[in-house]
Amino acid sequence: MASSTFIPQHFHATLGAHAHVLSVRDGDVVTTTTVDAHGLDHENIQRGGDTNPMTGPFLVEGAVPGDTLAVEIIRIRMNRRMGWTRQGLAWNVVDPARVRAMPEREKIFWRIDDNARAVRLERPTTALPEWSVPLKPMLGCFGVAPADGEYISTATSGHHGGNMDYNRFGEGATAYFPVGVEGALFCLGDAHAAQGDGEIAGTGIETSAEVEFRVRVIKGRSITWPRGEDAESLFTVGNARPLEQALQHATSEMLDWLSQDFGLDAVSAAHLLGMHVRYDIANVFNPAFSVACRLEKQALAGFSRRA
Amino acid sequence: MASSTFIPQHFHATLGAHAHVLSVRDGDVVTTTTVDAHGLDHENIQRGGDTNPMTGPFLVEGAVPGDTLAVEIIRIRMNRRMGWTRQGLAWNVVDPARVRAMPEREKIFWRIDDNARAVRLERPTTALPEWSVPLKPMLGCFGVAPADGEYISTATSGHHGGNMDYNRFGEGATAYFPVGVEGALFCLGDAHAAQGDGEIAGTGIETSAEVEFRVRVIKGRSITWPRGEDAESLFTVGNARPLEQALQHATSEMLDWLSQDFGLDAVSAAHLLGMHVRYDIANVFNPAFSVACRLEKQALAGFSRRA
Amino acid sequence: MASSTFIPQHFHATLGAHAHVLSVRDGDVVTTTTVDAHGLDHENIQRGGDTNPMTGPFLVEGAVPGDTLAVEIIRIRMNRRMGWTRQGLAWNVVDPARVRAMPEREKIFWRIDDNARAVRLERPTTALPEWSVPLKPMLGCFGVAPADGEYISTATSGHHGGNMDYNRFGEGATAYFPVGVEGALFCLGDAHAAQGDGEIAGTGIETSAEVEFRVRVIKGRSITWPRGEDAESLFTVGNARPLEQALQHATSEMLDWLSQDFGLDAVSAAHLLGMHVRYDIANVFNPAFSVACRLEKQALAGFSRRA
Amino acid sequence: MASSTFIPQHFHATLGAHAHVLSVRDGDVVTTTTVDAHGLDHENIQRGGDTNPMTGPFLVEGAVPGDTLAVEIIRIRMNRRMGWTRQGLAWNVVDPARVRAMPEREKIFWRIDDNARAVRLERPTTALPEWSVPLKPMLGCFGVAPADGEYISTATSGHHGGNMDYNRFGEGATAYFPVGVEGALFCLGDAHAAQGDGEIAGTGIETSAEVEFRVRVIKGRSITWPRGEDAESLFTVGNARPLEQALQHATSEMLDWLSQDFGLDAVSAAHLLGMHVRYDIANVFNPAFSVACRLEKQALAGFSRRA
Repeated sequence: MASSTFIPQHFHATLGAHAHVLSVRDGDVVTTTTVDAHGLDHENIQRGGDTNPMTGPFLVEGAVPGDTLAVEIIRIRMNRRMGWTRQGLAWNVVDPARVRAMPEREKIFWRIDDNARAVRLERPTTALPEWSVPLKPMLGCFGVAPADGEYISTATSGHHGGNMDYNRFGEGATAYFPVGVEGALFCLGDAHAAQGDGEIAGTGIETSAEVEFRVRVIKGRSITWPRGEDAESLFTVGNARPLEQALQHATSEMLDWLSQDFGLDAVSAAHLLGMHVRYDIANVFNPAFSVACRLEKQALAGFSRRA
Repeated sequence: MASSTFIPQHFHATLGAHAHVLSVRDGDVVTTTTVDAHGLDHENIQRGGDTNPMTGPFLVEGAVPGDTLAVEIIRIRMNRRMGWTRQGLAWNVVDPARVRAMPEREKIFWRIDDNARAVRLERPTTALPEWSVPLKPMLGCFGVAPADGEYISTATSGHHGGNMDYNRFGEGATAYFPVGVEGALFCLGDAHAAQGDGEIAGTGIETSAEVEFRVRVIKGRSITWPRGEDAESLFTVGNARPLEQALQHATSEMLDWLSQDFGLDAVSAAHLLGMHVRYDIANVFNPAFSVACRLEKQALAGFSRRA
Repeated sequence: MASSTFIPQHFHATLGAHAHVLSVRDGDVVTTTTVDAHGLDHENIQRGGDTNPMTGPFLVEGAVPGDTLAVEIIRIRMNRRMGWTRQGLAWNVVDPARVRAMPEREKIFWRIDDNARAVRLERPTTALPEWSVPLKPMLGCFGVAPADGEYISTATSGHHGGNMDYNRFGEGATAYFPVGVEGALFCLGDAHAAQGDGEIAGTGIETSAEVEFRVRVIKGRSITWPRGEDAESLFTVGNARPLEQALQHATSEMLDWLSQDFGLDAVSAAHLLGMHVRYDIANVFNPAFSVACRLEKQALAGFSRRA
Repeated sequence: MASSTFIPQHFHATLGAHAHVLSVRDGDVVTTTTVDAHGLDHENIQRGGDTNPMTGPFLVEGAVPGDTLAVEIIRIRMNRRMGWTRQGLAWNVVDPARVRAMPEREKIFWRIDDNARAVRLERPTTALPEWSVPLKPMLGCFGVAPADGEYISTATSGHHGGNMDYNRFGEGATAYFPVGVEGALFCLGDAHAAQGDGEIAGTGIETSAEVEFRVRVIKGRSITWPRGEDAESLFTVGNARPLEQALQHATSEMLDWLSQDFGLDAVSAAHLLGMHVRYDIANVFNPAFSVACRLEKQALAGFSRRA
């Protein structure tokens, strides 16, 4: 297992079978940098365009369709003090009759304090004079090249991952993607310093970052939708509109996972999920919404998990 | 403030302006019993019909349209050892292509052990031989008479509350309802011994219960959708299909709450929610889905709350 | 068979088991009047409140749950020269990003010319100086008392009919409703002088009217959703949100109709519908949307229909 | 203006910036052939894969982003006697509770009789012994390369067109697409011998075809969603899930069209649409649903149209 550092020179507006920038092996660790959702780097220099320009792709040797790519997010270091959001909420998260009275969606700037592990408004509002939010970095958009020759905008998401904007894809989490093409061709970008559920401001705190991740190839493990895992939970992510369909995808994927790894038949899985499932609305803003079907690991204590 | 005990003799299939069974005052505590979602009481005797027959209504003196009724759920005691669920998941929570392979939705029985605070399958599956779930009682369906002369089936929900099936409406929580008619006419029923998010089996563990609650009238406080509060969180509940509309209702109501009680303007509220909001999918099964917009109280520490 | 004339003195804001105003028999014809969606009568006198105050209910002798009530709309005569709409389109029928630039939704007045069979703007716009629309009267809201003790606001719709706002419920059409209570308890109101698909202005041209209709009881014919028939088509109407669910209801009801009346098995019905079905979006504005699944009668030529 | 004939040798599974197979000019007519949705040609030889393999792309000289490509469908000649559908209806067009009782979705064969302008089941059902449907050819999937470097599966649709499955895209219709890349790169395929609204069997009568079309470039005309026109109607097509969003796109595009070509301000357009709009559910089966917002030309008689 090797460690590489890669400094990107150009960025992609789609997830697809672009020429790879680096070839890595199962178990390798890569450290790289990402620009923000508008293509600004750590010095605020415009390096890529809208939306969510991607660093990569990284070819993972030996990964072929039918395998799963596991990406462990080891570290997301904020390499810029400036972050930004949109002011106000996205139009579609409030009642339509309220849209005309909503604030303008101007760009608002935040100061990221890595030492204090906190983020503050550059210009506090009267009602929020001393307010800060805990720094909790995450990757908004990452994934692999889709199958079937598609190149899909990084504004949206799908089976291949993409712009899911799920706040549990943070440091220490492992994401799983279905390999769609030879070498998987993993890309990443769109780091957020913090974000609530649903990305309801239409943004997290958008910033550039330095990201360290490890790739692993799970041979012969076929999955349909992205999965993830952190210290607390297992989760599956469905990406679609409307929310109900995203939830259907995520629930179906969790049934598969419970069968594959825990040997649970459909009835047993339904008992377990019926009592323990948690749903997170990851994003309700992007062209495809993202819903996570989540099980806390303590609900799975006592079950043996296949390697 | 007084305490009353009320033993119901008949039950209602709708929330509406039925004749009240008891008149209570602001601050009073009531202890009563509820039958299960199929109308079976603590001795498994059929007392009401499908779905979710209600105990009540309780007239709350002084409550008029424009006020809010607060109902503190002091205690939900399981008064029966038997609970039931449907086997398998609801058809609409998995991919449509998977529906034909789903288990039959037979009635499955559970044993509620109040001392052990646990619930077990009467007939464990092979994959779940020793499995139990923690007892965590909640009220699936409760609310007030709707405004405008409506009588609404207890299978569904709306502004007035109803069959929201939200697992945070448990012991210690306070629910807030917009008073729709004079006296509010509060009803309750459909206790669950436990339930995950979304009520995705189409049921919680359905049972009869003894419930103790306190009513309060918040004069002149006008709300649009049910709200709630427990030790950890504040939340608002939107009831509608599709999920996106339920979410819009809940988010809009939370904006109102943050303005009314915390003095947050729309921009400040958006900053706060954008970073801290949690969404819970309360039910994705009933005719109206329910989505909760939730804020942990620690995200509101430092803000002063109006009485 | 008898003819009655009924002049209403009060109006209902819900469809439900209100005391009947007139008892009629199978085959009887009734002539009555309706007020407009805001409760204004033929002299612009406020007689009922918002929304869609109903004339009725008419008890139909012999109708019991399990039967179908057929209502033939013989005539809808405009009894007022003034109609009104809302200016601009409903917020939810355009892209959310466009809502803030939409026209204010003021009340706009129209002149109904019954002789010319046309309706004109009271104040023509510059771009529409001489414009008129053909008079094509319809009933926006009508139906029976719901089953199970519900009283449902006339702002919305359901199994029992209600505010479907379908422009094919005009003169010459017959509507079919599932009888929910003894006597059916039919109500009507909310006449429109004209309206396109979807009621996308949130209104048709709202007016008062004189309506003549004939009731028939189809004993032992059980239906689930409203059906209808005119010279050109058979149709079924699903009422729900989102549109996809309304469409599912309507399609399912059409499958039942094709089986009941034309003896088509599920495969044959699917062949027929797959090639001939038409869907009309009746309303995409009300709390429940309405979608019609429609078959032109010429697609059914050659099939024998059960009486 | 020239006429070309092009016989395809390979087919594309995505709409994107593939190398063009022929370069044509504004006004040129092309005659080519298409394979069916499963890639079978006029001799039932497998030539392309699932789903909807495309003939093309055709580069149209002078077309650049910001222009509109007009494609007149002059002729769709059935070049095979065999067509196929899926038996039964798609799962998502009936109530979920009905899905488990639906027919298996086997492939069913039809005989296309070009002379009789009719299509018959190879194996008639008992209930449909002599049944045939009128031949009414249409193009299910066609469009241009998307903007922004996307390559999008021909199973779905978007701004660029694609798998809209709208039965008004037949002989004599003209489709308009927003040019996304230099040369537009038009592709076509997926001919249907006939199809009702919604493609609710999940298929039209799928077949190969010979297609003759004329391309025109409308310089400087910028559109957002596909538009179309036939002898009877103007229409715009929104492609998205859920249906409500597709309808929002289509309605918004029609507002733009009425402003651009007919000079109608938002209020006047709303008056016109409110009384005259027709909505067609083009497809309610594909990953993106398609809804057409349609105006009959007679509703536009008397308005002057810009060239």
